[in-house]
Amino acid sequence: MSIEIYKHNKEERIARTWGTTAGGLPYAEKAISGAGNWLIGGDLEVVKPIKYNDGLDRFRLSPSQLRHEFERRDADAVFAFQLRNPVHNGHALLMTDTRRRLLDMGYKNPVLLLHPLGGYTKEDDVPLTWRMKQHEKVLEDGVLDPETTVVSIFPSPMHYAGPTEVQWHAKARINAGANFYIVGRDPAGMAHPIEKRDLYDADHGKKVLSMAPGLERLNILPFKVAAYDKTQSKMAFFDPSRAQDFVFISGTKMRSLAKNRESPPDGFMCPGGWKVLVEYYESLAPASNGRLIVVGYFPNLFSNPK
Amino acid sequence: MSIEIYKHNKEERIARTWGTTAGGLPYAEKAISGAGNWLIGGDLEVVKPIKYNDGLDRFRLSPSQLRHEFERRDADAVFAFQLRNPVHNGHALLMTDTRRRLLDMGYKNPVLLLHPLGGYTKEDDVPLTWRMKQHEKVLEDGVLDPETTVVSIFPSPMHYAGPTEVQWHAKARINAGANFYIVGRDPAGMAHPIEKRDLYDADHGKKVLSMAPGLERLNILPFKVAAYDKTQSKMAFFDPSRAQDFVFISGTKMRSLAKNRESPPDGFMCPGGWKVLVEYYESLAPASNGRLIVVGYFPNLFSNPK
Repeated sequence: MSIEIYKHNKEERIARTWGTTAGGLPYAEKAISGAGNWLIGGDLEVVKPIKYNDGLDRFRLSPSQLRHEFERRDADAVFAFQLRNPVHNGHALLMTDTRRRLLDMGYKNPVLLLHPLGGYTKEDDVPLTWRMKQHEKVLEDGVLDPETTVVSIFPSPMHYAGPTEVQWHAKARINAGANFYIVGRDPAGMAHPIEKRDLYDADHGKKVLSMAPGLERLNILPFKVAAYDKTQSKMAFFDPSRAQDFVFISGTKMRSLAKNRESPPDGFMCPGGWKVLVEYYESLAPASNGRLIVVGYFPNLFSNPK
Repeated sequence: MSIEIYKHNKEERIARTWGTTAGGLPYAEKAISGAGNWLIGGDLEVVKPIKYNDGLDRFRLSPSQLRHEFERRDADAVFAFQLRNPVHNGHALLMTDTRRRLLDMGYKNPVLLLHPLGGYTKEDDVPLTWRMKQHEKVLEDGVLDPETTVVSIFPSPMHYAGPTEVQWHAKARINAGANFYIVGRDPAGMAHPIEKRDLYDADHGKKVLSMAPGLERLNILPFKVAAYDKTQSKMAFFDPSRAQDFVFISGTKMRSLAKNRESPPDGFMCPGGWKVLVEYYESLAPASNGRLIVVGYFPNLFSNPK
């Protein structure tokens, strides 16, 4: 066992992680700027698994537990889906379509790793406890098939560090047994904290995944864009030749609908899943200054489970 | 042949290259901040080699020309030395000692690639033309053995980008046939442009070289520190047990001695080489404001030969 101690050059760490040092990067403000001046590393030994005692520990499977689970299910392909949002029917379409494509390629039993992010997320993201309730409903309602889906929590904080972070997201899933990874447009992207533009080029994440050393074993599946098709009243892959038939419902739009107890278009999300979202926003009480605050029963949600 | 066009995100490029976006990074100011908003890349085809017509083109060997030269000399090991300064006897000691160590390891004919940087350098660095004259003297005076030394210009601009740049420095020399690379303390390092500290941790460069994918084939030889040993009146490897016997002569100190026509301690540099340095500073005339300016006959020295 050897211990290594490093200077914590915060400016360099932030610059190399996000490609900017502008103030207002959520994770940098949360976990780096106020941290100490030294870092410790070296060989790790697991003494015992970390327990959060929040009712979700059964979902926190280690990479080797995940590999065993895929073996137990006789999976001959594992495709991973990284998410930090409730699952709507557009996501579900993408996942079921990916499975169909893998069957077409000759795999007999492709298994989905639905791997929601369990660490720090921005305050306007839906907290983990509620997202897990929502994911359970999606499986109960049969939008995703429980037989071919493993739901597990990916215990990482969200950096919103675009092309840097997507490599971590992909590499961590390789270690957990995945051989296919679905990558979105502008993965882990966000708006520049002080300029009026996206922080990253939307294609940069996909590009680095295809070039990064160590990721050769992973097959990258580009995210097909789904949107609400008004002619079919359901989520469908966007067809640019009839763009006028589609409505894009962003995460912000979805949250604002749920917050205001409005219903999304029929077919956007399974009713059980939507109900969880509405319940979450009902559990928030408006603070005296008009901003929403959390009515404190998620003590660990914004802490970073290193 | 395919052409690729990219957005030129200057802030991201600077942040990821230097680990800071603070103003005053020499190469960023010279070549990035004022550049255009698009980058072009893709497959390259060499139409004809670039000629500078500055009398030094014979030293500008391409990677394949260098490989042929090493073959012609029957080299069974090639060790590369990156430099942007005049060669003093401390450098020479390090190079001849490296050759001795390679012979001890069983190699029959280790050849040195003395590979001075030929592109942009900071204004207080000695210009390429004068450095090349100085290097020729060092070989003429027998400080380095012409039989086992190949002098060639590495046509890259200097970024002073520490751990990022040292990977480029090393990888480029692998491509030119080197299998040993001598790395200094704080390679390509510089002071933080606005804070009172070095920009990089001095050991960071060596660390990334030992870990970077694609550099597995290269053997990294750590730079042994040489200093002027007053008891022997020559450059020798620093011995901490008798630290008081040694004088460290920095690049800044060396330049300031030559500028003021003072002599360095006997044995610091071969007399022919030192004479070139003094001539260089004599060729500079003091400007009316008391600062030194170049008396313009090096038109291409500060341009960047991409």
